[in-house]
Amino acid sequence: MEKTIGFVGLGNMGAPMVMSLLKAGYRVKVYNRTPEKAETVIAAGADRVEHLADVAVPGGIVITMVSNDQALEEVTIGEKGFGHKLEEGSIHLSMSTVSPETSRKLAAFHGKHNSHYVASPVFGRPDAAAAQKLFILSSGSSKAKERTKPVQEAMGQRVFDLGEDPGNANVIKLGGNFMIMAAMEAMAESFNLAEKNGIDRQVAAEVYASTLFNCTVYNGYGSMIANRRFEPAGFQLELGLKDCNLVLEEANAKQTPMPFASILHDTLLASVAKGRGKQDWSALTRIASENAGLE
Amino acid sequence: MEKTIGFVGLGNMGAPMVMSLLKAGYRVKVYNRTPEKAETVIAAGADRVEHLADVAVPGGIVITMVSNDQALEEVTIGEKGFGHKLEEGSIHLSMSTVSPETSRKLAAFHGKHNSHYVASPVFGRPDAAAAQKLFILSSGSSKAKERTKPVQEAMGQRVFDLGEDPGNANVIKLGGNFMIMAAMEAMAESFNLAEKNGIDRQVAAEVYASTLFNCTVYNGYGSMIANRRFEPAGFQLELGLKDCNLVLEEANAKQTPMPFASILHDTLLASVAKGRGKQDWSALTRIASENAGLE
Repeated sequence: MEKTIGFVGLGNMGAPMVMSLLKAGYRVKVYNRTPEKAETVIAAGADRVEHLADVAVPGGIVITMVSNDQALEEVTIGEKGFGHKLEEGSIHLSMSTVSPETSRKLAAFHGKHNSHYVASPVFGRPDAAAAQKLFILSSGSSKAKERTKPVQEAMGQRVFDLGEDPGNANVIKLGGNFMIMAAMEAMAESFNLAEKNGIDRQVAAEVYASTLFNCTVYNGYGSMIANRRFEPAGFQLELGLKDCNLVLEEANAKQTPMPFASILHDTLLASVAKGRGKQDWSALTRIASENAGLE
Repeated sequence: MEKTIGFVGLGNMGAPMVMSLLKAGYRVKVYNRTPEKAETVIAAGADRVEHLADVAVPGGIVITMVSNDQALEEVTIGEKGFGHKLEEGSIHLSMSTVSPETSRKLAAFHGKHNSHYVASPVFGRPDAAAAQKLFILSSGSSKAKERTKPVQEAMGQRVFDLGEDPGNANVIKLGGNFMIMAAMEAMAESFNLAEKNGIDRQVAAEVYASTLFNCTVYNGYGSMIANRRFEPAGFQLELGLKDCNLVLEEANAKQTPMPFASILHDTLLASVAKGRGKQDWSALTRIASENAGLE
């Protein structure tokens, strides 16, 4: 078992994930671009490193949880990136939501340095991270995944093995985000039809969420969409557009027509054009409302 | 409390619903076009009536559970329909999935005869009906709904009051069927993208159904779509097309653009054109698979 783990990125998700690792008995060396964000985990026993590259543990595991592809490349293979310092047998456990292409590119980089890359995006919000209830996806070489599994299990309730191709876990994560956005649009169209018939949108939302669709996505977003409450943003609409673009790029590369994703893309694009990029991504449903003369 | 209830339509849903009423202590007078289908409920204590119109109980409740709008109109206002025999104060509790327009038309008919109409479609399959676990929608005059509520509660786990307009419950039911079809198409697009990346469709389905979308629709249909198992049909695709047409007619009448519903309509239409009308409605996802070169 690993004793010490490096960790880069102490945002809303990263910080509670470090806490889970500490709770499980790991020593954790942390780095964050904004040092103040490290304070909570330092107080809980994590060790701060001065320079990014110092998160590298000889032959050990470094976890990254940053905001996007660019940030991940920067901390990994940028001029001061820790990737250059990973020694033989080390593993980069990459838990951010990024494109399959970025994962494949970084996997190739690490391969050249005899280190390994495991793509491991998660489903779950900060409260799930704090309770070790994340669902954790995992793709990469079997040997590397075997070593990362106990570490992943310390942060989540279940780990899904998605094969050797490092991009696979990212494909599944992006597909999930697409399915959430599709569910939002479907709810919006249905709630609008109800409203136009004089039915309270919130009653409609409650009926669906307590019968056919009794799951987190429909419960949580159904209520936001019915009440047209799009702030504060849990996940910004412009990040939804980014993910939709990644889905369509992947769909294009793999010759997979996705008519729902195409409609969502136009809807998200219109939403950003109307200045809603910083609202919650469920605000994509405002286009359907506007087009029905309801907003 | 009503003591005797009339019941028309003893199919997969109607028969277990009669059993629930018997279990709750009601006397039930039943009629079915095909008399053999009544045998189980007769054996359990229901009374068979010879002529359709004899299901009418003076001042009481008649429940209908038939296959479509045409059948409902036939048994209610057709030449031999029971609607002509409903006396003052009687209630037609209409539990089939029909259009809001049919509900409004029948409500107007009953109104002229001083009887009442309560639209009350359900969510749930035959096994839910057998276990009194249906979710029951209800719209119509408050006085009538007050009287039907204990009867509905004898058949289901929850009754949702959707207001006075008799069409409302049908709008919500149709909206639910639309949302199911939208979820199917979204799953198909996502599973296809996974498959094109070399990921097992069934693993993808399992990940989504056990994380973000842990509810009946995604669990049940996710497995069928991942395995491309579209027979036997739980609900025929041509009935899905019928419902999608009803949704779009209502959307048109109420000026509510529904881009996902429009795509689903073309997809269902193509499916029927390819001879899949009798397959399960989840077979609508075969179009996405074919268009990705996967079938």
